[in-house]
Amino acid sequence: MLKAEIMAIGSELLTPHRTDTNSLWLTGRLNSIGIQVHIKTVVGDDEARLEETIRDALRRSDVIISTGGLGPTEDDVTRKVFSRVTARQLVLDYDVLAAIRQRITSRGYQMTPNNERQALIPRGAVVMPNPNGTAPGIKMEQDGKLIFLLPGPPRENQPMFDDYVMPDLERKSHGVRIATRVLKVVGIGESQLDDKIAPIYNQYTNPTTTILFTDSEIEIHLTASAASLERAAELVDELADKLEEAIGDKLYSMRGESLEQVIGDRLRVKRYTIATAESCTGGLVAERITAVPGASDYFIGSIVSYSNEAKMRLLGVGAELLEKHGPVSGEVAEAMARGVKEWTGATIGVSVTGLAGPGGGTEAVPVGTVYVGIADDVGSANRRMILPGDRHLIRWRASTAALEMIRRRHLL
Amino acid sequence: MLKAEIMAIGSELLTPHRTDTNSLWLTGRLNSIGIQVHIKTVVGDDEARLEETIRDALRRSDVIISTGGLGPTEDDVTRKVFSRVTARQLVLDYDVLAAIRQRITSRGYQMTPNNERQALIPRGAVVMPNPNGTAPGIKMEQDGKLIFLLPGPPRENQPMFDDYVMPDLERKSHGVRIATRVLKVVGIGESQLDDKIAPIYNQYTNPTTTILFTDSEIEIHLTASAASLERAAELVDELADKLEEAIGDKLYSMRGESLEQVIGDRLRVKRYTIATAESCTGGLVAERITAVPGASDYFIGSIVSYSNEAKMRLLGVGAELLEKHGPVSGEVAEAMARGVKEWTGATIGVSVTGLAGPGGGTEAVPVGTVYVGIADDVGSANRRMILPGDRHLIRWRASTAALEMIRRRHLL
Repeated sequence: MLKAEIMAIGSELLTPHRTDTNSLWLTGRLNSIGIQVHIKTVVGDDEARLEETIRDALRRSDVIISTGGLGPTEDDVTRKVFSRVTARQLVLDYDVLAAIRQRITSRGYQMTPNNERQALIPRGAVVMPNPNGTAPGIKMEQDGKLIFLLPGPPRENQPMFDDYVMPDLERKSHGVRIATRVLKVVGIGESQLDDKIAPIYNQYTNPTTTILFTDSEIEIHLTASAASLERAAELVDELADKLEEAIGDKLYSMRGESLEQVIGDRLRVKRYTIATAESCTGGLVAERITAVPGASDYFIGSIVSYSNEAKMRLLGVGAELLEKHGPVSGEVAEAMARGVKEWTGATIGVSVTGLAGPGGGTEAVPVGTVYVGIADDVGSANRRMILPGDRHLIRWRASTAALEMIRRRHLL
Repeated sequence: MLKAEIMAIGSELLTPHRTDTNSLWLTGRLNSIGIQVHIKTVVGDDEARLEETIRDALRRSDVIISTGGLGPTEDDVTRKVFSRVTARQLVLDYDVLAAIRQRITSRGYQMTPNNERQALIPRGAVVMPNPNGTAPGIKMEQDGKLIFLLPGPPRENQPMFDDYVMPDLERKSHGVRIATRVLKVVGIGESQLDDKIAPIYNQYTNPTTTILFTDSEIEIHLTASAASLERAAELVDELADKLEEAIGDKLYSMRGESLEQVIGDRLRVKRYTIATAESCTGGLVAERITAVPGASDYFIGSIVSYSNEAKMRLLGVGAELLEKHGPVSGEVAEAMARGVKEWTGATIGVSVTGLAGPGGGTEAVPVGTVYVGIADDVGSANRRMILPGDRHLIRWRASTAALEMIRRRHLL
């Protein structure tokens, strides 16, 4: 199996403010043709350090993919140092130079000597054109190892990778093909889920199963390899179906879609409309629902009622209800859901009220206490939970609980 | 100057789903005492690969900080491989074992043989206690190089770093102290800003100036080094003041605070209250305002009116106004702002209406067209912009424009 190494080049990636993220997408593409990434490095514009890192990479890896450092300035040393390590001269490529000049002058800019630097190509290397920027990519073979130098911006390096790197690697990867599936689960604890599904996925070594815990849900990643993509897909589908049967309706996505996408699709099919009334989540539920393109098909509106007065004025929550039960209560959650349903005329009203902290907690209502309410033409209901985490996490988890309540009561 | 290397250990960090992020925080702390990170590596649980990487690190770096791989399972090979490379035996530490047993049994769990593994310490190494998890950290000195093995989770490795790593490194870093400041700017283009400030910051080599562009604003990072923290702080303050003078009121933060924090603080001081009416941002403006703890002091509520009907019913926008100007118009933006101000009784009403796409654009109203409206006791106003980017970016930039409109009209 081919061993790949990804090298991110750029001093800004060694600061507290930026780090390499290109490698995530690249790893996904490499994995899809059966190539594992066995090490990643991040280096700056320091020539000596980069030279050493390239030598180490040539020693240990079959495929080396670098991102960054192909720009026009003095700091962009990728071309120079790879040439030195592979003992190739840098040669001005007139075709590349013409393409760069064309790109720059067509935008009304002046060509500078710096731009010419980007047309210097190691002797014997192949140029990978860059329709989305001035820096072309470069590929070369050295002692049987494949080297690909890509520009840093994702919108430049991703199309280049698919067009010029993938075909080479597919030929080298001896026909292994990989299929992946992501299943998503909400509303069940990790150990409880694992008790249910470990006896199933442990029977398989192909596909492999990886379980990831995110802030408010669980992802199950299945990866199968086979001689054809069709066969690999069959393998993941078979295990995915067994897991779906075992997990039941806590599994909301069989293809990696987000909860808000799944809900949106089903609301559209059922011709339901929805509105939200939010207190502690401050608009996050509405924001997540409307992040999906086309949400206007089913989302009518939202009222964020942060103060008691706003709950009364905007949602018609009764003063005596607020007085008797407090703003963080199941009764107020249901009244908010009914209020927004009535005001907007939506099929379903959903609400969140709670205490996201950090201050304001009491023994009766500790930080993290959240009520989710829902109202429809039949009536209303609520659910209480105490969510762990900081303000950000509590708000996020509360918004997920509200979305999950919609799915569970109306969309199964 | 000491050269540090950060090594993230764990096979999950070589998948398309997770990568090292610990190094960002660690780099910030290291930089604060004058230590630069000159290379970062990410390796899996493969013993041979890790051994090689550690040997490379000992060759090139003065300080090696690893995160991860200290857990109780077979896959957690950090302890074992570092011991091998430094030619130390792994010795069971009875104090550590007792601490682990205490932690596990106090929670009602059974101690397993796997847990005992975490009490194996390389001979001559020093244990760094972990009050937030079972895996203790380990530090050792090898041929004058400092090695620190930290657990993977940030809430475990960050306090451990501050308590047990920083004091050692401060002693080694020869008294160099670093001060940093982050200035934030909104509402001005990058080249326009650079024209203004480059002649100023180019006069200084200490502090150094780094300019970062984020989705909707610009950050200016200043870093100064000196023999004392006070002197370093004076150096950054001096340049920060000059930059503030040159940039003027587009500079909204002198200490890295977010726009929503700055606005919140000033609203509280001025005893203003605020409410938002949102269409294309779907609640994002309210969500950002309420992400700041204590926002209930000045935030009353929000109405998300996605459909025309919701704009009429919830905000009192006139049907003829919608008919005549369309929902994406300055007139409707102002009517929304007035509507939400009236409904909520807030001092200031702010609104956003626009087209975030990807579909729905026309020649007259292309995707990215956004109007921000504002209303107060004096009257109302609006601003039109055409924002670049995808749906997510357009929504984010529109929310920033709304926040900036509040700041500019009421809080300068």
